[in-house]
Amino acid sequence: MGYMNTASMHAGGGEPRWLTDEEQRVWQAYLHATTLFEDHLDRQLQRDAGMPHVYYGLLVQLSRAPHRRKRMTDLAMGAKITRSRLSHAIARLERNGWVRREDCPSDKRGQNAVLTDEGLKILERTAPGHVEAVRQAMFDRLTQEQVEQLGQIMRIVAEGLQPEDSGADLPWLR
Amino acid sequence: MGYMNTASMHAGGGEPRWLTDEEQRVWQAYLHATTLFEDHLDRQLQRDAGMPHVYYGLLVQLSRAPHRRKRMTDLAMGAKITRSRLSHAIARLERNGWVRREDCPSDKRGQNAVLTDEGLKILERTAPGHVEAVRQAMFDRLTQEQVEQLGQIMRIVAEGLQPEDSGADLPWLR
Repeated sequence: MGYMNTASMHAGGGEPRWLTDEEQRVWQAYLHATTLFEDHLDRQLQRDAGMPHVYYGLLVQLSRAPHRRKRMTDLAMGAKITRSRLSHAIARLERNGWVRREDCPSDKRGQNAVLTDEGLKILERTAPGHVEAVRQAMFDRLTQEQVEQLGQIMRIVAEGLQPEDSGADLPWLR
Repeated sequence: MGYMNTASMHAGGGEPRWLTDEEQRVWQAYLHATTLFEDHLDRQLQRDAGMPHVYYGLLVQLSRAPHRRKRMTDLAMGAKITRSRLSHAIARLERNGWVRREDCPSDKRGQNAVLTDEGLKILERTAPGHVEAVRQAMFDRLTQEQVEQLGQIMRIVAEGLQPEDSGADLPWLR
């Protein structure tokens, strides 16, 4: 799914560095696994709590923050999503009564999101089923060695995609 | 982001099988890498061809199929997406002139999607930049051993999420 090997026309220096057959198979497996997994977790959380996976992740972030509150920009960075996607999610969570927004005392333009008692309850009720879904789909299927390998590989990829330099096109800076 | 360790109330048998600290770090790295990567490829393809990553994958599938055509249901299965998401994508690609739909001769209710010459041109023009983006973000950063490990792990996860039994809740069967 990643690309094709038959392209003949291309602009820019040198021959394209096409993937080998083995790399193509790996890339395909990566796309299949990640697409299926995200769909699976969205379905599980929609069924159990009426929210998609990304919303759940925001509640988790807030539950772990001091005083259950976090700046909107930090939340977006933690979830690796754009500010506009975050705003939309927080508005929905606020309508559910699970989160509320407040002005940030230290920064006039900033806002905090705060996890409500109701939000914490939803999280506590949903977490056991969610961790079970994650375990069954991933950790139960891998050896301890594979879990370590996966962690190393994913850290390398994640670090490469968020370079330190300030010009990087990162979702939460858009 | 996966879940919390503090839940005290839960229904269902036994203590929840919370993730260990190490598993949590792996899970977090997985979520960060996959979210950043999908965003990165969407941006790259929007910039270079005005389409998101999933649309590009559909064009690739068609380019590899005999006579550049594929049944809609097979396309959805190949992309691991729902039929409604596929319909939406194909409608957009059709408006761009890159794909056309035709009735399936062997199945009165079925439809094929066909890659047009224009669609093939777009793919050929876009593929070199796309494969470069995939290489830079993933394959250039991993050792040959890590690429093999990633392939094994992703195949295990993907297979677990699409069991053979007919009752499975798979996106393309919804």
